Amino acid sequence: MTPKLVAGIEPPYYTAVFTSVRPDAPEGYAETSVRMQEIVREVPGFLGYESARTPGGIGITVAYFRDLEALDKWRLDTEHQAAKRYGREHWYDSYSVHIGKVERSYGFERE
Amino acid sequence: MTPKLVAGIEPPYYTAVFTSVRPDAPEGYAETSVRMQEIVREVPGFLGYESARTPGGIGITVAYFRDLEALDKWRLDTEHQAAKRYGREHWYDSYSVHIGKVERSYGFERE
Repeated sequence: MTPKLVAGIEPPYYTAVFTSVRPDAPEGYAETSVRMQEIVREVPGFLGYESARTPGGIGITVAYFRDLEALDKWRLDTEHQAAKRYGREHWYDSYSVHIGKVERSYGFERE
Repeated sequence: MTPKLVAGIEPPYYTAVFTSVRPDAPEGYAETSVRMQEIVREVPGFLGYESARTPGGIGITVAYFRDLEALDKWRLDTEHQAAKRYGREHWYDSYSVHIGKVERSYGFERE
């Protein structure tokens, strides 16, 4: 299956860029990740996400939201906050979050 | 070697998020990638970048710039533009670019 990008979102919108360093498959991570995907999809204004991880390297996830209200709803979700706290204690060596307002975007798709 | 994240940049700054679908190691890609890294490091206002690629999945690169002037200098660089054109013709099935202004960022690093 060819992976698909999130495409065709009209600006303005918001990106939450999450970059992290952690072991490749820490205990309990996969289950929590699936659960977080369930929760974020229920947030009104959530527009999609993309995720990549280089084995032995870093991981980057980009989540797209229509506005800051949607992004904050996700950021402050109780179960999400508990997962982040658990992640800091058990999984992550380091992470960064960059919240940006997108005014310009473009893309390419092979015919 | 533990991978390191770009950290400690004070907002406001800009992120260029580049997400792409392509074969894992197309011909000529690695050399061009090295050359692009050389060029972008010379752009005044370039603050660093991070890159991740899931084998068989998508790739995400995030580049950080102090302002739009720096980002546009990189975006419009002649050699960079030629590389993108070559990439569209030879490497990429699809890609997206999202240019965002970051007003809020935070991070975590294990003690």
